[in-house]
Amino acid sequence: MPGPLGEFGRIARLLAPLTEGCPGALSLKDDGATLTPPPGWEIAATKDMLVEGVHFLPGDAPRDLARKMLRVNLSDLASMGAKPWTWLLSFALPKRCDDAWVEAFVSGLAEDQAAFGMVLAGGDSVSTPGPIVLDAVLLGLVETGQALRRTGAKPGDDVWLSGTLGDAALGLMAAKGELTGLAFAEQDYLIRRFQVPEPRISLGRALIGRASAAMDVSDGLIADARKLAASSGLAVEISAPLLPLSEAAAEAVALDAALFARILTGGDDYELLFTAPQAMRPHILSAARELSVPAALIGSARSGEGVLLRDKDGAILDLGDTGGWVHG
Amino acid sequence: MPGPLGEFGRIARLLAPLTEGCPGALSLKDDGATLTPPPGWEIAATKDMLVEGVHFLPGDAPRDLARKMLRVNLSDLASMGAKPWTWLLSFALPKRCDDAWVEAFVSGLAEDQAAFGMVLAGGDSVSTPGPIVLDAVLLGLVETGQALRRTGAKPGDDVWLSGTLGDAALGLMAAKGELTGLAFAEQDYLIRRFQVPEPRISLGRALIGRASAAMDVSDGLIADARKLAASSGLAVEISAPLLPLSEAAAEAVALDAALFARILTGGDDYELLFTAPQAMRPHILSAARELSVPAALIGSARSGEGVLLRDKDGAILDLGDTGGWVHG
Repeated sequence: MPGPLGEFGRIARLLAPLTEGCPGALSLKDDGATLTPPPGWEIAATKDMLVEGVHFLPGDAPRDLARKMLRVNLSDLASMGAKPWTWLLSFALPKRCDDAWVEAFVSGLAEDQAAFGMVLAGGDSVSTPGPIVLDAVLLGLVETGQALRRTGAKPGDDVWLSGTLGDAALGLMAAKGELTGLAFAEQDYLIRRFQVPEPRISLGRALIGRASAAMDVSDGLIADARKLAASSGLAVEISAPLLPLSEAAAEAVALDAALFARILTGGDDYELLFTAPQAMRPHILSAARELSVPAALIGSARSGEGVLLRDKDGAILDLGDTGGWVHG
Repeated sequence: MPGPLGEFGRIARLLAPLTEGCPGALSLKDDGATLTPPPGWEIAATKDMLVEGVHFLPGDAPRDLARKMLRVNLSDLASMGAKPWTWLLSFALPKRCDDAWVEAFVSGLAEDQAAFGMVLAGGDSVSTPGPIVLDAVLLGLVETGQALRRTGAKPGDDVWLSGTLGDAALGLMAAKGELTGLAFAEQDYLIRRFQVPEPRISLGRALIGRASAAMDVSDGLIADARKLAASSGLAVEISAPLLPLSEAAAEAVALDAALFARILTGGDDYELLFTAPQAMRPHILSAARELSVPAALIGSARSGEGVLLRDKDGAILDLGDTGGWVHG
């Protein structure tokens, strides 16, 4: 039986195969990678560091963890309208992460880099006396000068949201056993949405030239809408009844109305929040249909500042100071 | 007196100023950065993760630590012949790293990114219950297709080394109080070489079109020469008396001849080890003189494999199995 691989063995045996198709990676055997974006495209770059015990739990399955790490970064590329291109990975692993752990982690990387069409270019593997730390840099490609930003919304623009809201926040509660009233199938659905988010790459690409501003919702809708409003120098008005909920989330709220606050402010959605001129409505709806990505019109931008949430009668709901939600 | 800055405050107040001159960084306020290399250039990418207690010590001054982190990565760019362009930073900090720590760390980043002509494009700042973890991705620019690699050495090529060898390994010993026979000024010199290495960017640029292979010496000359030999599919022969030593290192060896082994195998030199056809000798010597970067001819490449070290009489010195050095 062969012994453990060691750092160099892990790089050569487990990680180097991830670079197939990226000749500039030189199979991770040189001092660095060379990368050339095609003419007419610029690079969209995003970097995220994940710490065990802060961003994920010690017992999390390494394969899911790998996929979540990539998908969180892919969601940033989606929000810029970029397509995935290449990426670099560092990880600091404590001794307890054996070769089997690394193999399972790499299997998740391989699965999702194939699913999203990108290839590893380089990185670093080190040991640590502390918790697991993962760091990924994703480089996407976007037509030069066309990247979607948070700054372009104009008063009168529609405000849109992809997918459904709050599944991840409720999924985290379900994983902790805090949603026991809900059927198992619905709990499973929500937990899966928390564990493996769906970056909206294809929708982001379709929004190039259509959306006026975009970002991904990672810190909760209200907090992130505030950021978009501040970046664009206007107010975002959202109609609560228009917010798209999954069947499982709707069922959870039907059982406990207080969970609606969690849906508005919980993180980890990784859906796209974007604005577009009203004239773009038919184009956005048809693109969403074609791509099978739900897109819901949830409000509008207007002059002013901050975020305003209205109930079904148009009354303003009090959002409090912290992004936390309190019924007015 | 204002309170502590918090994560967002640190990013806005301390890190965002580092992005001045990189409009695609959007002052770290968006989901990611956009980057466009100029036509005719490709990107050289390198990524390094540093863990407290593994790669640096808990008490290390944050300003020096910042500079070393950048310089270690800059040395990788130098070994590819690339010029610094832009970079991304992540750090995981425990609570004990207060604003003063971060300010000192950022002052080191600011100093060296200015010294080497690059600007921050993005990154991530997170908290950790464990040791400090730093991760930098540096992106350099190199003329398309011209990057220096480890693979191009040919039998008959000269083998060169920049700067002086072993200062960092002896500096680490001095820092630990293990070189007490040496004068203070010489100990200080060696410690400084350990703390703040000198990436050979200008020499790397001058080697484009001249060197046949290049890498930086980070794991010790013998171990790294073995990697270059293996990548190029040949043997590297080094003449021990030709190895360039600083006055301080020469003095240390004069006091204790056994330290020469440390000089051959100690890490953290960050000098360039490169090969070039013999016809390039005058060009390399004049470039080195012009740039005020010492370059020493230390041996030659020939068919075969591995590393061979000869003493002043041409006798072969036994390097042992591990890269460790034993007199034959």
